[in-house]
Amino acid sequence: MKKSKSSIYNSGDMPASELKKYGYQFIDWITSYLDEIEKYPVLPTIKPGDVKNNLPENPPEKGETLDNILADIDKKIMPGITHWNHPDFMAYFNSTSSGPGILAELLTAGLNVNGMAWHTCPSATELEEAMINWYKKMFNLPQNCWGIIYDTASTSSLHGIAAAREQLSHLKIREKGMAGRNDIPQLRIYFSEQAHFSIDKSVITLGLGLESIRKIPVDEKFRMIPEKLKEAIKEDKSNGWLPCCVVATVGTTSTTSVDNVDEIGKICNEENLPSGQAGIWLHVDAAYAGTAAILPEMQWIFKGIEKADSLVINPHKWMFTPIDLSLFFTKKPDVLKRAFSLSAEYLKGYEEGATDFMDYGIQLGRRFRSLKPWFIIRYFGVEGLQNRIREHIRLAKDFADWIESHPDFEIMAPTPFSVVCFRAHPKNINDVDELNALNEKLLDEINKSGKLFLSHTKLNSKFVIRIAISSIRTMEKNVKDAQHLIEQKLNGLFE
Amino acid sequence: MKKSKSSIYNSGDMPASELKKYGYQFIDWITSYLDEIEKYPVLPTIKPGDVKNNLPENPPEKGETLDNILADIDKKIMPGITHWNHPDFMAYFNSTSSGPGILAELLTAGLNVNGMAWHTCPSATELEEAMINWYKKMFNLPQNCWGIIYDTASTSSLHGIAAAREQLSHLKIREKGMAGRNDIPQLRIYFSEQAHFSIDKSVITLGLGLESIRKIPVDEKFRMIPEKLKEAIKEDKSNGWLPCCVVATVGTTSTTSVDNVDEIGKICNEENLPSGQAGIWLHVDAAYAGTAAILPEMQWIFKGIEKADSLVINPHKWMFTPIDLSLFFTKKPDVLKRAFSLSAEYLKGYEEGATDFMDYGIQLGRRFRSLKPWFIIRYFGVEGLQNRIREHIRLAKDFADWIESHPDFEIMAPTPFSVVCFRAHPKNINDVDELNALNEKLLDEINKSGKLFLSHTKLNSKFVIRIAISSIRTMEKNVKDAQHLIEQKLNGLFE
Repeated sequence: MKKSKSSIYNSGDMPASELKKYGYQFIDWITSYLDEIEKYPVLPTIKPGDVKNNLPENPPEKGETLDNILADIDKKIMPGITHWNHPDFMAYFNSTSSGPGILAELLTAGLNVNGMAWHTCPSATELEEAMINWYKKMFNLPQNCWGIIYDTASTSSLHGIAAAREQLSHLKIREKGMAGRNDIPQLRIYFSEQAHFSIDKSVITLGLGLESIRKIPVDEKFRMIPEKLKEAIKEDKSNGWLPCCVVATVGTTSTTSVDNVDEIGKICNEENLPSGQAGIWLHVDAAYAGTAAILPEMQWIFKGIEKADSLVINPHKWMFTPIDLSLFFTKKPDVLKRAFSLSAEYLKGYEEGATDFMDYGIQLGRRFRSLKPWFIIRYFGVEGLQNRIREHIRLAKDFADWIESHPDFEIMAPTPFSVVCFRAHPKNINDVDELNALNEKLLDEINKSGKLFLSHTKLNSKFVIRIAISSIRTMEKNVKDAQHLIEQKLNGLFE
Repeated sequence: MKKSKSSIYNSGDMPASELKKYGYQFIDWITSYLDEIEKYPVLPTIKPGDVKNNLPENPPEKGETLDNILADIDKKIMPGITHWNHPDFMAYFNSTSSGPGILAELLTAGLNVNGMAWHTCPSATELEEAMINWYKKMFNLPQNCWGIIYDTASTSSLHGIAAAREQLSHLKIREKGMAGRNDIPQLRIYFSEQAHFSIDKSVITLGLGLESIRKIPVDEKFRMIPEKLKEAIKEDKSNGWLPCCVVATVGTTSTTSVDNVDEIGKICNEENLPSGQAGIWLHVDAAYAGTAAILPEMQWIFKGIEKADSLVINPHKWMFTPIDLSLFFTKKPDVLKRAFSLSAEYLKGYEEGATDFMDYGIQLGRRFRSLKPWFIIRYFGVEGLQNRIREHIRLAKDFADWIESHPDFEIMAPTPFSVVCFRAHPKNINDVDELNALNEKLLDEINKSGKLFLSHTKLNSKFVIRIAISSIRTMEKNVKDAQHLIEQKLNGLFE
């Protein structure tokens, strides 16, 4: 190694020798952390302010060594960490990072390119295009769709609905906006009561307003009822509303229910709207569950997906990809581009025919995220990924079977993927409020134990506990331990 | 180290021993890359498709070893890399990553937490709050302002303008939207001709439309003319427009000109608007130049900043922070929260009094970005960061002096920071088109050399070359070499 040209207090970066030395130490730290993660409580047991109050109020005037910083990770940061990588983290949709994903992030930071335009890093743009093609094949998506990587599902859905708005080109919203005009109707966005609240937030951001949302009822399996959607559209049209977008969810957050994309797609496609476009824009939110389409036996979830206009799947949810990586597919990239392209002299591209991804989104700065799938898909192979996803679904079904056969618990929703909704329901308790209080208490006891982290939802006013089995580190043993703990904590409430 | 429980083809993550082994190899790779980066051409010399065509069309069925992947980085990815970390990358505003920033990203991926709510990772939320306080002190910002970390300046500015829209609470845009209403006026957003196009894009996204933009002329130093802003507001009001937001830029992208925040702030604060708020929302875009406020002698750039409602500064531009990290400050977090808070049962927080950052933005998923400043500020110290920023400004002034004293070049804009705008202007050429063609050709020759990467802009129809000196790896020698190369390439055009 060359002698470094730099020193801390003058100019330049950390010397190469130091980066190497501490790089090894950080690799050691992360390796040990992941290998011994089960020694940590999943949820920290601290109060608001505990971390902050332990940090200096002022930035240091002089530089410090990385030894200090490494020591402070254990002392000051770890006590306030919720361990998303823990095998017993079974709350929400857990995002877990895998070894190859971590190494890809390391390389991303080392290269630190900004793939906003083709020429600002051709490899970032073209690896992204290649990975989009890999994902399309893995998920068996229509080969004519186009894709891009964004950061989160919130961002992806915002772009989907923005494109839906732009598709109503006769309204000239991009040019004239919506305020102060008496020549445009109110727009309507449809989604089920079970859709994610990031959809509502997108609607607010885009200036459509909460009143433009029409929530469609769900059936007993928490799936949007297509007939109700059809009626709502008809009624709205007769009242002067213009249908703008339908959002279907494949794997809702509360129960992982699957809206019928095929039926909903037919309804959307059939509509003739004044702007001359083919139908109502259908956006499909499959942020969590889309990954399951890697299994041939699960590809039914995307039946009719060719009728959709856009689709989001988040590999950072169930594909062992460090946060963030959200996939957005659309069969109408031209509409998306019309909604978001604008440039400046200083960014004029060098090459005709190359893709400038900045033209397809809000954010100009773009991290080199495609390295992550390139590492993860190659390291595990499609088969390796399939095995893991399939195993999670098997473990969830086993857990659901256990719940069903248990006298004190009951299943609260179907289990199409790797999330089980259940609650304690001892025979002698039948009052709704009492059951809710019992389950809330049970969840609290479970989470306080530090041995398991579950989350909850409410379904028809019932407090429901959710267990999500989608961590790369969750094994059969962890699920069995979870069963024992849940049972034990329930019994503890009656002792 | 324990024997790993996992194997590639069944379940679980990469074995610990393998993560360690390859982790060291990646650290070695990155260390060598950064140490020997000058051996690479700054800009790749490939054509669109060259990278993609070298990648397999199908994802691999079986897993591969990381040796293959490492080898492919050099073979398939590096030929298409634009080297943002190269000391001779002097285009745009270059984002460079430092050793401590890279190690922080490694840790971020290892922990892989999602800091959406306090309880989903208390350390992520509270370290973010602590770092916001450090930044406020370093930049000498009003201590009563509140802050949050977003991904990019595009996102930050979108949030600033969204808050401005929400501040007009009497319009009830969050609730009712803007379409199909005859009870709200057209809204106006003001910024200079030199503002970044991400502001225009935000306006489109928010549904305000390009027509709501009123671009204010600039003076001979490319600064918004406050008097013209005042006149525009007056005229608009008399024509029924409602002023919604003014965006001032501290460090414009083309020339790094500095709008007079104090004067503009006075104009905004003086307005009395029908919604009862204090004045017109003033958003300040200091994405690049804000970092300079770390120097006492540069704090004039934020004179009057207490009059602003929101402010963006990007440490991933000039503070040696791997992309992405954008700071957003506001003195009205309640308005921002009103614009973006919405939640769901499954995310109900556990602790009253704790901050849930998800309530202040579009994106629900939030990376643990605050580790980066924690590492970078501690490693270099405030003094170390100041020395580097000060040196960049000195190098830029030296370069500008050289241009001014050179018979064949001329300065095209003032140099308040570390960017110099110049063009070749040999004595015998005076035709505008001829000069433009000459400079375009010169820039092309420079960039094709692989020894230097500069960008350009247009100022009053003149093609202008920009040199940006803000990489942590750029030393005096690199700037001198750039001078020689520029001179040599110009001479080459006449041989």
